Amino acid sequence: RSAPGFAAIYKEFVAGGWNSLPFDPEFGGQGMPWLLATTVQEMWQAANMGFGLVLLLNQGAIDAIHHHGSAEQKAAYLPKMISGEWTGTMNLTEPQAGSDLGQLKSRAVKEGDHYRITGQKIFITYGDHDFTENIVHMVLARTPDAPAGSKGISLFLVPKVMVGPDGTLKGRNDLRCVSLEHKLGINASPTAVMAYGDNGGAIGYLIGAENRGLECMFTMMNNARLTVGLQGVAIAERAYQQARDYARARVQSRELGSSRPEPVPIIRHPDIRRMLLTMRALTEATRALTYSAGLSLDLARRHPEAAERARHQRRVDLLTPVVKAWASETGVEVASLGVQVHGGMGYIEETGAAQHYRDARITPIYEGTSGIQANDLVFRKLGRDRGAAAAEFFAEIAALDGDLATALGGTLDRLREQLAAGLAALRGTTEWLVDIQDKIPQAAAASATPYLQLFGRVAGGYLMAKAALAAHWAQITGEGDSGFYDLKIITAQFYGDHVLSQAPALRQPIEHGWESVLDLDEQQI
Amino acid sequence: RSAPGFAAIYKEFVAGGWNSLPFDPEFGGQGMPWLLATTVQEMWQAANMGFGLVLLLNQGAIDAIHHHGSAEQKAAYLPKMISGEWTGTMNLTEPQAGSDLGQLKSRAVKEGDHYRITGQKIFITYGDHDFTENIVHMVLARTPDAPAGSKGISLFLVPKVMVGPDGTLKGRNDLRCVSLEHKLGINASPTAVMAYGDNGGAIGYLIGAENRGLECMFTMMNNARLTVGLQGVAIAERAYQQARDYARARVQSRELGSSRPEPVPIIRHPDIRRMLLTMRALTEATRALTYSAGLSLDLARRHPEAAERARHQRRVDLLTPVVKAWASETGVEVASLGVQVHGGMGYIEETGAAQHYRDARITPIYEGTSGIQANDLVFRKLGRDRGAAAAEFFAEIAALDGDLATALGGTLDRLREQLAAGLAALRGTTEWLVDIQDKIPQAAAASATPYLQLFGRVAGGYLMAKAALAAHWAQITGEGDSGFYDLKIITAQFYGDHVLSQAPALRQPIEHGWESVLDLDEQQI
Repeated sequence: RSAPGFAAIYKEFVAGGWNSLPFDPEFGGQGMPWLLATTVQEMWQAANMGFGLVLLLNQGAIDAIHHHGSAEQKAAYLPKMISGEWTGTMNLTEPQAGSDLGQLKSRAVKEGDHYRITGQKIFITYGDHDFTENIVHMVLARTPDAPAGSKGISLFLVPKVMVGPDGTLKGRNDLRCVSLEHKLGINASPTAVMAYGDNGGAIGYLIGAENRGLECMFTMMNNARLTVGLQGVAIAERAYQQARDYARARVQSRELGSSRPEPVPIIRHPDIRRMLLTMRALTEATRALTYSAGLSLDLARRHPEAAERARHQRRVDLLTPVVKAWASETGVEVASLGVQVHGGMGYIEETGAAQHYRDARITPIYEGTSGIQANDLVFRKLGRDRGAAAAEFFAEIAALDGDLATALGGTLDRLREQLAAGLAALRGTTEWLVDIQDKIPQAAAASATPYLQLFGRVAGGYLMAKAALAAHWAQITGEGDSGFYDLKIITAQFYGDHVLSQAPALRQPIEHGWESVLDLDEQQI
Repeated sequence: RSAPGFAAIYKEFVAGGWNSLPFDPEFGGQGMPWLLATTVQEMWQAANMGFGLVLLLNQGAIDAIHHHGSAEQKAAYLPKMISGEWTGTMNLTEPQAGSDLGQLKSRAVKEGDHYRITGQKIFITYGDHDFTENIVHMVLARTPDAPAGSKGISLFLVPKVMVGPDGTLKGRNDLRCVSLEHKLGINASPTAVMAYGDNGGAIGYLIGAENRGLECMFTMMNNARLTVGLQGVAIAERAYQQARDYARARVQSRELGSSRPEPVPIIRHPDIRRMLLTMRALTEATRALTYSAGLSLDLARRHPEAAERARHQRRVDLLTPVVKAWASETGVEVASLGVQVHGGMGYIEETGAAQHYRDARITPIYEGTSGIQANDLVFRKLGRDRGAAAAEFFAEIAALDGDLATALGGTLDRLREQLAAGLAALRGTTEWLVDIQDKIPQAAAASATPYLQLFGRVAGGYLMAKAALAAHWAQITGEGDSGFYDLKIITAQFYGDHVLSQAPALRQPIEHGWESVLDLDEQQI
């Protein structure tokens, strides 16, 4: 049973049509751009990440069925999942199979037009709940004759309640929620241990082909990874707004350099402002990158020219691990700053700041840890085309330099230099990684995380600089809200001085830091 | 009532004589060096920070009475507080007076040889508990004719149970615990709202002179600040040990570059090793700095030469805010990495990793936030002698360069370069801050936190390099455990590549980042 009011809120959410925003109109979706759905979803995730998770998982399940399901499966399940009348889940993890899905043991035995599924799954977000009459589980399992490892995994659709050919609900399937985890955060969302087939086997339907489950899973996963990055942005925005409001209201200490003895709102104290601007700048930069990936996802699907579709698909593939890991890690950092701005009050649960710090901490872990993302970036995304897609992105960043130089009075010169220095480090380390991963793969693996951090900071800096330039020209031409554009430029310069300026130094951990990592005897550590 | 078993553990702790380690033998202490007490206390804080807090607060109260109490007060209270038979507290904060103690309103009215105290105090650690028969509260309050602000604050000793001249316990004083806070972490320690004088006024005794309470408070506080830094080290060590043990036991994924398909303990994966080494290097560096401050504290008190005592007191004064803020912030970072190493299991409370992440988060807040420490470092510690004590410390760091150069085969050359670059940035920004704080104090305040981070990283790098050099010579001469020395050198080099290498880039946020902070209209942010 969910927290009081949650089931009612979910029904309102569904009735408002929010769930169907980006999905295929053929199955009742609104066919809106992914980018629009992203901006809307940011609000849901910021409002309540525990609630927002049900949307994230359903969305992944919908995508998997849409891409890999049969016509009958789509017709039977998609309309109700897209409307939100039913929800979906992803059942991947088992106690011995976390990041290493090749170790999973759940079994699927063919029986006529379906399979019998048995096994235990853990960490199943919204594995059971009282929002909807049915839940559609996407379950990874292994057929009896499947090859060992990750090449022997298949994906099955396993409904909680059986569905008749006419879409009516029949009896319960052989699956149940065994227990719920006690977690650090996102406590409004049930994280279930699921048991399949205790009474002879749950009925499941193969999605796609046998032994190709990992491909189908990655369809869910890539989508979910972008949304987890978005959760990082959302929680950062929430934490920022709360900290800013507190800093405006909390009166403490006189103003530095003022002759007036009265205490002032703490937002006047430079170190508090520095923290708030750090929160704001990091939130804007991670948001810009997440949205830009969302835009590319739309263009990869809908651009009229095939070459552009392909180019944008390359961009989404490249950016997905960066969005997932950088935006989520940054969300944790921003939430932690939010606690700090509140001082002692931040440590008291009733204040609410601590919840963001607890909630945010899952985002660098689930849907593939930051380490998994960094390895994906280096070995798959750089490795498969020897850095070509990355070089294409870097050329776009380099091209901004000339535009930045045109800003009047050299307004954006410092930011321009910081971006150029960051880009040089990013290009240099990319070449180094493309080269070393063939020679010493362990070195590339040890350097992958600082490289991803460098990538995120520079990519974020590029988009912040682009925004600052647009704001600059808008100010000159006098269009729009000048205060808004002021703030855009100040925030971008702040990002340059405090975040982007730290990027080039990451060359050292990337190019030299792996030696000490590999030198180490594991018994010593 | 404390958690089951806690009161019994406290009694064992006291019976073992652990509490009295560093205190004055005249009052039953063992007179051991502060440094020894520090190393022992690290274990208590690592074992259980919620428990360890009772020691930290008692220690602060003992120091205040020892330095500022009368002979009678010392005789009546110190023996029982030093043995641990009674505990002490610090009562500073009120709802409207946190960092800004000048705003406090608790009142103290003279009545013969004592005062009547009335008011409410919040965030009182171990404000009430069932460990001991009596609790000695150190309470800041204001006499009726006191000047406004921080110059009108006095310190009072307010016992929970009244004490007769012969040390026997009499009736209850007029004070009580009103409620306990619901906190993010350190939940084993009661954080009390305390009400004084609901029935006419609690009896309190003036410590030191009227209106000089802030000085006495700083005696408690400086001591407590070093110990809070130590809590950062302790929680980092605890988190590291747990993560390392998990990484040895958890089997997941094949080894990179190996032909064997079997999954291996995750400690073999380069990114996991990188995280563990980061945890280890940061823990060692913050520990080295905390211990070095502890050593200087001993030498400031006990060195036979007055000039050396003065030099070490300058060093303690300089390092206290750095130890407090850098070690505590680093403790949070390490605890967060500890969660990450555990993957999904780290997010489950039963695993224990999340508790360190929650517990650690208070350390950059209490006993003066990191922002307060950074301002103390810049305005008081640099400002009062225009950087002379800092320059003295930097000269010591510079002198290591020649010694590092003597290491055979240039073993430590990269670390040497990294230290030199860090020191140059630290020296440059120190000069800049000494200069700018007179001209634009707001700029110095906005840059104080990144400066403190730079200071911590370089000071930690100095001590890591010193340790590596000692290990190098020990290896050459063949003394001691060669594996231990190997690891010292590898960890120091890792620190150089991953932490110290990031120090020079902090010049940019320090010297340029303040402009955007100050540019901002507070209504815009």
